[in-house]
Amino acid sequence: EPEGKYTPMKNLYAEDGSPVYPRQGPYFSDGQRRVDYVLTYQIQKPNSIRRQSSRFGDNNFIRRLWRSLNIRSRRAEAQPKEDPEIAAQDQRTDYHEDDKRFRREEFEENILETGLELEMDERTNIPGIGFMKVHAPWNVLCREAEFMKLKMPTKKNYEVKQGSNLVEKIRLFIHKVTAPLHPKVDPNRPQTVKFLSHPFSREKQHLLLANGVYTSAYPLHDVSITITLKFDVVNVSPLTFGISSYRKYFGEKVGLYFAWLGVYTQMLIPAAIVGVIVFLYGCATVDDNIPSMEICDPRHNITMCPLCDRACSYWKLVTACGTARASHLFDNPATVFFSIFMALWAVLFMEHWKRRQMRLNYIWDLTGFGEEEEREESEKAKVKLTCTDRLPAYLTTVVTMVFMILVTFAIVFGVILYRISIKAALHMSTYSDQSNIRATVKGTAAVINLVVIIILDEVYAAIARWLTALEVPKTDKSFEDRLIFKTFILKFANAFTPIVYLAFFRGRLVGRPGNYLYVVGSYRMEECAHAGCLMELCIQLCITMLGKQLIQNNLFEIGIPKLKKLLRRRKSDLDSKQEEELNRSLYRHEKDHILGPFVGLSPEYMEMIIQFGMVTLFVASFPLAPLFALLNNIIEIRLDAKKFVMELRRPIAAKAKDIGIWYNLLRGLSKVAVIVNAFVISFTSDFIPRLVYQYMFSVDGTMHGFVDHTLSYFNVSDFQPGTDPLQPMHLGYRVDICRYKDYREPPWASTPYELSKEFWVVLAARLAFVVVFQNVVMLMSDFVDWLIPDIPKDISLQIHKEKILMVELFMKEEQGKRLAARENHNQDNCNSPSSANQSPPRPRSRPVSHANCC
Amino acid sequence: EPEGKYTPMKNLYAEDGSPVYPRQGPYFSDGQRRVDYVLTYQIQKPNSIRRQSSRFGDNNFIRRLWRSLNIRSRRAEAQPKEDPEIAAQDQRTDYHEDDKRFRREEFEENILETGLELEMDERTNIPGIGFMKVHAPWNVLCREAEFMKLKMPTKKNYEVKQGSNLVEKIRLFIHKVTAPLHPKVDPNRPQTVKFLSHPFSREKQHLLLANGVYTSAYPLHDVSITITLKFDVVNVSPLTFGISSYRKYFGEKVGLYFAWLGVYTQMLIPAAIVGVIVFLYGCATVDDNIPSMEICDPRHNITMCPLCDRACSYWKLVTACGTARASHLFDNPATVFFSIFMALWAVLFMEHWKRRQMRLNYIWDLTGFGEEEEREESEKAKVKLTCTDRLPAYLTTVVTMVFMILVTFAIVFGVILYRISIKAALHMSTYSDQSNIRATVKGTAAVINLVVIIILDEVYAAIARWLTALEVPKTDKSFEDRLIFKTFILKFANAFTPIVYLAFFRGRLVGRPGNYLYVVGSYRMEECAHAGCLMELCIQLCITMLGKQLIQNNLFEIGIPKLKKLLRRRKSDLDSKQEEELNRSLYRHEKDHILGPFVGLSPEYMEMIIQFGMVTLFVASFPLAPLFALLNNIIEIRLDAKKFVMELRRPIAAKAKDIGIWYNLLRGLSKVAVIVNAFVISFTSDFIPRLVYQYMFSVDGTMHGFVDHTLSYFNVSDFQPGTDPLQPMHLGYRVDICRYKDYREPPWASTPYELSKEFWVVLAARLAFVVVFQNVVMLMSDFVDWLIPDIPKDISLQIHKEKILMVELFMKEEQGKRLAARENHNQDNCNSPSSANQSPPRPRSRPVSHANCC
Repeated sequence: EPEGKYTPMKNLYAEDGSPVYPRQGPYFSDGQRRVDYVLTYQIQKPNSIRRQSSRFGDNNFIRRLWRSLNIRSRRAEAQPKEDPEIAAQDQRTDYHEDDKRFRREEFEENILETGLELEMDERTNIPGIGFMKVHAPWNVLCREAEFMKLKMPTKKNYEVKQGSNLVEKIRLFIHKVTAPLHPKVDPNRPQTVKFLSHPFSREKQHLLLANGVYTSAYPLHDVSITITLKFDVVNVSPLTFGISSYRKYFGEKVGLYFAWLGVYTQMLIPAAIVGVIVFLYGCATVDDNIPSMEICDPRHNITMCPLCDRACSYWKLVTACGTARASHLFDNPATVFFSIFMALWAVLFMEHWKRRQMRLNYIWDLTGFGEEEEREESEKAKVKLTCTDRLPAYLTTVVTMVFMILVTFAIVFGVILYRISIKAALHMSTYSDQSNIRATVKGTAAVINLVVIIILDEVYAAIARWLTALEVPKTDKSFEDRLIFKTFILKFANAFTPIVYLAFFRGRLVGRPGNYLYVVGSYRMEECAHAGCLMELCIQLCITMLGKQLIQNNLFEIGIPKLKKLLRRRKSDLDSKQEEELNRSLYRHEKDHILGPFVGLSPEYMEMIIQFGMVTLFVASFPLAPLFALLNNIIEIRLDAKKFVMELRRPIAAKAKDIGIWYNLLRGLSKVAVIVNAFVISFTSDFIPRLVYQYMFSVDGTMHGFVDHTLSYFNVSDFQPGTDPLQPMHLGYRVDICRYKDYREPPWASTPYELSKEFWVVLAARLAFVVVFQNVVMLMSDFVDWLIPDIPKDISLQIHKEKILMVELFMKEEQGKRLAARENHNQDNCNSPSSANQSPPRPRSRPVSHANCC
Repeated sequence: EPEGKYTPMKNLYAEDGSPVYPRQGPYFSDGQRRVDYVLTYQIQKPNSIRRQSSRFGDNNFIRRLWRSLNIRSRRAEAQPKEDPEIAAQDQRTDYHEDDKRFRREEFEENILETGLELEMDERTNIPGIGFMKVHAPWNVLCREAEFMKLKMPTKKNYEVKQGSNLVEKIRLFIHKVTAPLHPKVDPNRPQTVKFLSHPFSREKQHLLLANGVYTSAYPLHDVSITITLKFDVVNVSPLTFGISSYRKYFGEKVGLYFAWLGVYTQMLIPAAIVGVIVFLYGCATVDDNIPSMEICDPRHNITMCPLCDRACSYWKLVTACGTARASHLFDNPATVFFSIFMALWAVLFMEHWKRRQMRLNYIWDLTGFGEEEEREESEKAKVKLTCTDRLPAYLTTVVTMVFMILVTFAIVFGVILYRISIKAALHMSTYSDQSNIRATVKGTAAVINLVVIIILDEVYAAIARWLTALEVPKTDKSFEDRLIFKTFILKFANAFTPIVYLAFFRGRLVGRPGNYLYVVGSYRMEECAHAGCLMELCIQLCITMLGKQLIQNNLFEIGIPKLKKLLRRRKSDLDSKQEEELNRSLYRHEKDHILGPFVGLSPEYMEMIIQFGMVTLFVASFPLAPLFALLNNIIEIRLDAKKFVMELRRPIAAKAKDIGIWYNLLRGLSKVAVIVNAFVISFTSDFIPRLVYQYMFSVDGTMHGFVDHTLSYFNVSDFQPGTDPLQPMHLGYRVDICRYKDYREPPWASTPYELSKEFWVVLAARLAFVVVFQNVVMLMSDFVDWLIPDIPKDISLQIHKEKILMVELFMKEEQGKRLAARENHNQDNCNSPSSANQSPPRPRSRPVSHANCC
């Protein structure tokens, strides 16, 4: 109801009976006109306490009239008071300052011309900062709303029948089950007062900010609403209920972010549950696993070749028992099922989000808004750049990006070298327990990786911004999209290079005994523990996910702001009581000025996308990833809400129909996830070799003998000179033949140490699995995509119904009009056949326009 | 210009000075009101020559008035004349006829109520048929146009700057190059008069037709336009110029079909050129091909194992020389390049079409029309069916479809058996030239396949229609989509099963000498010729494409209509002169009644989609497919245009923004094409084995020795009893070891006749190629998709410009209004700050609605 829209906040305060701080209200000094927007600027003389308000602004005159009036009134009203002081100072200050003031004045003039009202405020609560408060009167809002084709509720309303079908029942059940996750809130909480938010002159604004004429620009927080939202943050996750109020307060763009985060978190619940079940299945079957039983059986007594040159000696396979048992937790048939499940989960998530987005579009009256968005575009297009102008920038981008990715690779390689060399050094110096050494090296390497990732993340963000600015994109939207794309590529490479190395390269570039691969002089490439690299991949994923989330969430998002606040307090030498007093004495716009600026949603989305990558890409090796992500998100969603409501300046409410480029990135990730999971299952895990053994080579059709089958023979006399162990008798007996994990011909074959037929059989099976897995999962995904309509059925029915009602309404109106017209003047009608029959037939080529006729 | 719109056709005739046949004009008997639509019905008494015209219809009264008036006037005017006769007849005819007449009357009443005007015509030129002519007056058209939100040109116009960039130059060049394909036409040909076409009450209409109340319903052809279009058909392909006139005459749906066909045909030109080049490359390099040289070299003297049991004997590889050389034409490295090219071509085609569609949408003012389409939906939704109601129908569908596909498989298997048995019989009876036998069998089998495909095509179309009707879809659109989907699946399975068999199964299920696979008793499964099955696949594709197109295009689309006409002429015993006279004497609506009904665009699209499948799916084995398709389409596009203009009743102009489900089918096909081509290259062709040999097994890194490497050894003493050749000395010497094409261990190995290591190496390489090919091509496709914007840049700029102009226009109008309002009454304005300053501040919660204020 339009009446409710402009109830002044002040009244609400009075009704509450709470103490009314007149300064708290976001109003002009007359206490009536609301401050819709604030611009701040540096003023030259921080000591002179001055307060002026210039209230002109009425767009009811035509422009020319306005311009003259404006200039006259401002000169007459505001200037004379300032002139003596400013004139004296102007001579001292440089031309630059003067220019800024001139630009500001020109800008203010333009603003006034559009019908907005201004109030200047150069008080000293925050020294050196001038405030320019902007009020948008009702008729300006109306005009803008018309241009934006904002949809308004009509008087006509209709009842929506609640569907009670199976889907609805399932939804209700799910809601009940997940109820503990979003604590109780009164769903009938009365709608808080709604304000028309409009994008204002954003393009001009940031151009001005870039020029340094104004230092910041923001709308004000609204205490009456933030109190409710604060309550939400503490008690309710914005999973299901809070989104609408967030959208009303922050605009559709932020609303969509929270909605998306909510859907993502909700969808993580089933994934986490299935993941835990898969993990538990692994735990339960660890004792029935024949390969690890064989490894742990001391009777098998298999002597393995040394793991490093000289310093290491032969070792017994039974010592790898622990690792073998542990790796079964993540390397069992259930993980294959789980990665298929997660591929479909990703598709379902995308579908679910599309539907939710559609529903929100309908509820928020955004249907048909799409085209309007483009109005914003080609604002900077005045500087027309041709392809050849842009080429250097594009080249720079490509070269820098490639270089940065190479840097990432180099760093990962460096960490590998660290691991290899430290391991070798440890082996050299002492002969302590091998597994301890391994654990230490693994741990430190993972931590180094993590630290590097976090540091590079910040560097890459800066580089991406610089590169995008270099490209001079035509529009703001294009700038944002390009920036996001670059940041995504760099951060993604950064986060996933070590994981990809572990999954697909580690242990594969080792060579074989007698012919090892050496890097940087004499370091042998590292091998995996006996039962595949899946275990190490798993540890790396675990550390990255937990570490990144702990550090980025807790340290960066909570710790550092807290620290800053503390430092500020120290600096200002005020105790909390005094500060509270000061806080109370500040105007709303001054308080908001102290808060951090709103830097957009990209960092929030980016964090979530990287997490989504972790959850989907390598889920085959780490079924607990969804659980970790879920736990993180339940915290994240609250932290984000708190940050937006209390710690940042209120963002300009921006309209958005969808989450833009992020959706495409998600889609891309879920596509890549299919092939990555196929490769993880077939190449990283031992799933395929086990299957091949069982169905092709096993004598009795069981897994017995699998371990022996995967180990090749090596004749110790074939060691390259100087690489044989220093302590050949370490195990207490002389070793002639040692074993190593590979499919190669034995020393007594016609082609010793060549890749054996088994190798090729297993390779063919692995590749066949990749082909089958990828195509089956893609087919299933497409099928699910096709099966689920993008627009929920009830929404499409409602849209249809509304359309019919609209047509009926207009039909009635037209009929009413026609009747009235007929009664008034019966002759001058458009086309009446009765007259056509009586008068001589006239050709139908009447020069009437559409509007004239109907 | 609206003035131009309703120039009566008659005037144009008079200006030409050509003889005016008053009967030819599509007008009511007053010669003024145009016949926009015709409904026909069966009348009881064909002999009584009666002609009545009832002209009422004016929607300027309100409905209630109308109803009473209508009933009175019709009863007063039309009924009395008929009553005596009809009443007498009614007693004789059954209730059914009476009911039909009653329904007709009710329907006519409703039509009149909407403001349309009717004229009945029961003349006897075509005995037994009554015509109901409908005229839509200007105001009805206006009203409907408003409801449809038809976009009209405003008075405002602006200049579009022609882009002169590189792309434009390339486009111009391409246009020049392809100019011979679309003969010269005057581009400045004045726009023929444009008529507002509107979908009319289609839903009601087809319901009525289904009831048998009316027998047919169609709008009339317009001779003045068909003459121009006929000219187009003969001289110009609607590739580039003609589409707009087709769209104006037939509506957007048909216009889009021709546009799509044009784009497809255009895009086939480069594909055909590259295809021919690839083929020529094959021809040029056939003499440098080492494997075929080795086969043809008599010095190699390789003795092959017999091709059938008993009857066949050993043969020399040199006799396969011709086949080997021929197969090189289609099995060379260039085909690999070509299939990558075609995968990208398919993506480019889709992108190009998206952009073209967007451009047409813009030119045809369809932007923003999308939502309107749904208005048509849920028309039949009155009968609410639940899932359980639908289950039997769905089950029937699935079961029938599966059964039909199995029938297809069975028929293909039958053809295989035919081939095997005939071949065996031929071998048994005579000992004539082997290659002759092979050619005969191949030829007849391919022809049988073709005939079966064509017959089953017709059967499947009927089955799909029946199944879809069984499902009772909710809307017309849904009916069409489901029907198309089913027909597509069945026809696709029908067309491609024999090809898929040839490509992937033939020659792979043979077994090996001494252990052949036998089907249906003692028939050995068929082998391929020595150099892979690619050659046979190629022949099959060639026959299917040429045959289908020849038979379906020429026989079905030209021959049968011609034959029908001939038969009709024979029957009516009129010579051509007399017929022409009769033709001249017929009214337009009578002439059109004789024409065939318009059955929709589905058959046309379906034919093209199957062709698209042939072109993309197996392009790796038949690089000339695009050329064949191109030649066919150049004819097809003309035949279709001729058919629509001259041989079918004019279709109801239907609005459409895109080609609907066909786009999705095309997308699906181009996705499937990638994987199918990957398999054809890696498994059907010898590309991978050659590569593997060259880089892994070849002694000197060349292809020398490849043929020997692909042939395994067989000890003739290992033949199963009773399968050894009857004439072992056929070649003139005793054979101990014969060779066969497979990778198996020799008889003297420890595991004789087992699959050898080479087999697994080649298999792994094949699968690796599939994985790499599929992912690389998919990545490239996605990249191309991402690179090319869906909306052409100039169109998006123009749309943006138009929007800005619109806003400016409205802004000016608003300002003008405001100024006028201010001059008239200065006080009752919405919100003037000057008054706010003077009067005590009022709260802004004024109860004003949006419309009131602005």
